[in-house]
Amino acid sequence: MLNTRLTERLSLRFPIINAPMAFAAGGKLAAAVTAAGGFGLIGGGYGDAQWLEQEFRAAGDQKVGCGFITWSLGRQPELLDLALAHKPRAVLLSFSDPAPFADRIKASGALLFCQVQTRRDAERAIDCGADVVIAQGSEAGGHGEKRGTLALIPEVADLIAAKKSDVLLCAAGGIGDGRGLAAALLLGADGAMIGSRLWASTEANVSEGMHRAALNATGDDTIRSQTMDLARKLPWPQRYSARVLKNAFIARWHGNEAELMTVADEEAAKYRAAWAEGDPDRSNTFVGEVVGLIREIEPVSTIIERMVREAESVLRDSQRFISS
Amino acid sequence: MLNTRLTERLSLRFPIINAPMAFAAGGKLAAAVTAAGGFGLIGGGYGDAQWLEQEFRAAGDQKVGCGFITWSLGRQPELLDLALAHKPRAVLLSFSDPAPFADRIKASGALLFCQVQTRRDAERAIDCGADVVIAQGSEAGGHGEKRGTLALIPEVADLIAAKKSDVLLCAAGGIGDGRGLAAALLLGADGAMIGSRLWASTEANVSEGMHRAALNATGDDTIRSQTMDLARKLPWPQRYSARVLKNAFIARWHGNEAELMTVADEEAAKYRAAWAEGDPDRSNTFVGEVVGLIREIEPVSTIIERMVREAESVLRDSQRFISS
Repeated sequence: MLNTRLTERLSLRFPIINAPMAFAAGGKLAAAVTAAGGFGLIGGGYGDAQWLEQEFRAAGDQKVGCGFITWSLGRQPELLDLALAHKPRAVLLSFSDPAPFADRIKASGALLFCQVQTRRDAERAIDCGADVVIAQGSEAGGHGEKRGTLALIPEVADLIAAKKSDVLLCAAGGIGDGRGLAAALLLGADGAMIGSRLWASTEANVSEGMHRAALNATGDDTIRSQTMDLARKLPWPQRYSARVLKNAFIARWHGNEAELMTVADEEAAKYRAAWAEGDPDRSNTFVGEVVGLIREIEPVSTIIERMVREAESVLRDSQRFISS
Repeated sequence: MLNTRLTERLSLRFPIINAPMAFAAGGKLAAAVTAAGGFGLIGGGYGDAQWLEQEFRAAGDQKVGCGFITWSLGRQPELLDLALAHKPRAVLLSFSDPAPFADRIKASGALLFCQVQTRRDAERAIDCGADVVIAQGSEAGGHGEKRGTLALIPEVADLIAAKKSDVLLCAAGGIGDGRGLAAALLLGADGAMIGSRLWASTEANVSEGMHRAALNATGDDTIRSQTMDLARKLPWPQRYSARVLKNAFIARWHGNEAELMTVADEEAAKYRAAWAEGDPDRSNTFVGEVVGLIREIEPVSTIIERMVREAESVLRDSQRFISS
C-alpha cells in the first residue's frame, strides 16, 4: 500500500492514474487500472461517440473516469453529456482552457481533473475549481509542452500550497517505474499519472508492431514533433507538440513541415491507413522518454504491483542516506 | 549529513556539486561550495587563461575542481595543463566527446567527471573511464539538450549498474531545493549538480540586474535558444542550445536566426557590450526552470544547508506514504 492524499480522497490502494491516452486507453485498460488498485481513465480522444460509448461499456462495473482533449471537446460538446451519463468518477480536461466545461463537470458530481503543462495553466486550473491538477512535463509521450517534470512539480506544489491547499497534485511525464513514482511523491505530488508504462501493457489498444518498436528503443529515441498533427490534419493549437519514437515518418517530415502541408491531403490518407494498420514506421508510436525503462509488455496488474513494490522499497531504503 | 557513494568517495558532507557555469562559477563560488560541505567546480568556460589562473588563486586552499566545455578546450588544449598544474580534485568535461582529454586527466590523479545529456553519451563517458557521470536534463540553465532529468537518471543508473557499477552518477537540471535533491537520490543518483540555485548566490559572478530578473521569473519564463551563440559567434555544435530567461533579446531574435546571422558582426559587438554591463534585457540571463523556486539571493552556505535540511526532512517524512 502507498498512502497519499490522493488514495484517501479517491479510496484507492495506490496513487496511480493512467493517462487517458487517445486510442490506447480504452475501457479495458481503464478497468484494469482501477481493478489493480489505481484509478482508470478512458481516453476520450478526438471524439468518436460510438467508440466512447463502447469503451464505457467495456469498462463494465469498474469505477473509471474519462479524459478529454479540451479544444477537441469544444468542437463536439455533446460528448461531455455522453460521458457524464455514465456517471464517471472523474472527468479530465487537458490542452486549452478548462473554463467552458469545468462547472458542468463539477455540477454532475464528477471530480474535475485538469492536466496542465505550465505553472500559469496550473493557476488557471485552480481558479476553475480543479479537484486534481495533473502537472505534465515534456518527458511525457503524446501531446504536451516544454517544461520538465522535475522542476514543474515542486513549483506547482508551492502554488497550490499558497493558493488552495486542498487541491491535489499528480505528476505526469517521465514516470515509468517505482523510482519515478517515489520521486514524484517527494517532489510534492500526491500521485502519478502513468502513460507509456501502461501503454506497454496487454490491455492497451496498441499494435504489436508499435509495442515491439518501443521495446527496442532507448529514451534517446523519442522526439517532440508536430508533423503527425499536420499529417492527420488535426487542428492542435500551436503551443502543443507530441512526443513519439523517431522513425521513417519523422525522418521524412520533421523539419520539412512546410513541404508536408503542401501535400497534406495525400499524406493524411497515407497516414490514416498506416495508423489503422498499426504501422510503426509510416505512422507514429506515441511514447515518452521512459520508453528506455520498459523491457516487456505485461498485464496492467503486474506493472502496477511492481511499480508500487519498487516505490515502497526505494522509500524505505532512502533512510540510509540520512545520518546524524 | 547526507551519505551517498559520492560523499564517501570524495569525503564530502553533502552530495552536492556546483555546475561549472561559465563566468558565474569563479573561484569564490567554488571555494564556498567546498567550504559548505559540497564540492566546488570552477567554470573553465570558453578559455581565458588569465581568468582561469586568477580564479584558481581565488579558490585559495579549498579543494576544488574545474569544468571545461570540451569542444572549446579542443581549441585551446593548453588550458588543461594550466588547470592540472593546480592539482584539481576533479576535471569535468561536457559537450562533445571526452576521449581526447580523458586519459590525461586520469593520469594526473584528478577524478574524471563527464557531464552528458543522453543515454548514448553516458555510455561513451563510461567507456572513456569517467569516475562520475553527470546526467543533465533539459530543465538545466545554460547549455544542454532535450532529454528531461526525471527519466534520464534511472535510465543512466540502469546502464551504469549493467556496465560498470562503481561509476558514480549525479543528476543535473531541475534541482533547486531539498525536494529535488531527495528525488534525485531516489531516482538512483549518488548526488546532484546544482546550477541555477547556486548562481543565485552572493558568491556567484552575476550582475545585480540578472539576479533581479531571475527573482521576478517563474519556471515558465525560460526558453532554450541558440540565438545567444549566434550573437556571440560561438561555434557551439548544432545539437546544443542554452536555456535562458525570455527577454527583449529573445523576443527580437528567437525564430529569426537567419536574419541574426546576416547582422552577426554588429550584433556580436552589441551583445558583448550588453553582457559586460550585466544587462538582462540585451544579453541573456542563463538560468534553468528551477528559477521559479528561487526567492532570494543568499550566501552559498545558507543555500546548501537549507537544501540538505529540506532533503533530510522530505526523506524522513516520506515514510508516511508506506503502510502495510
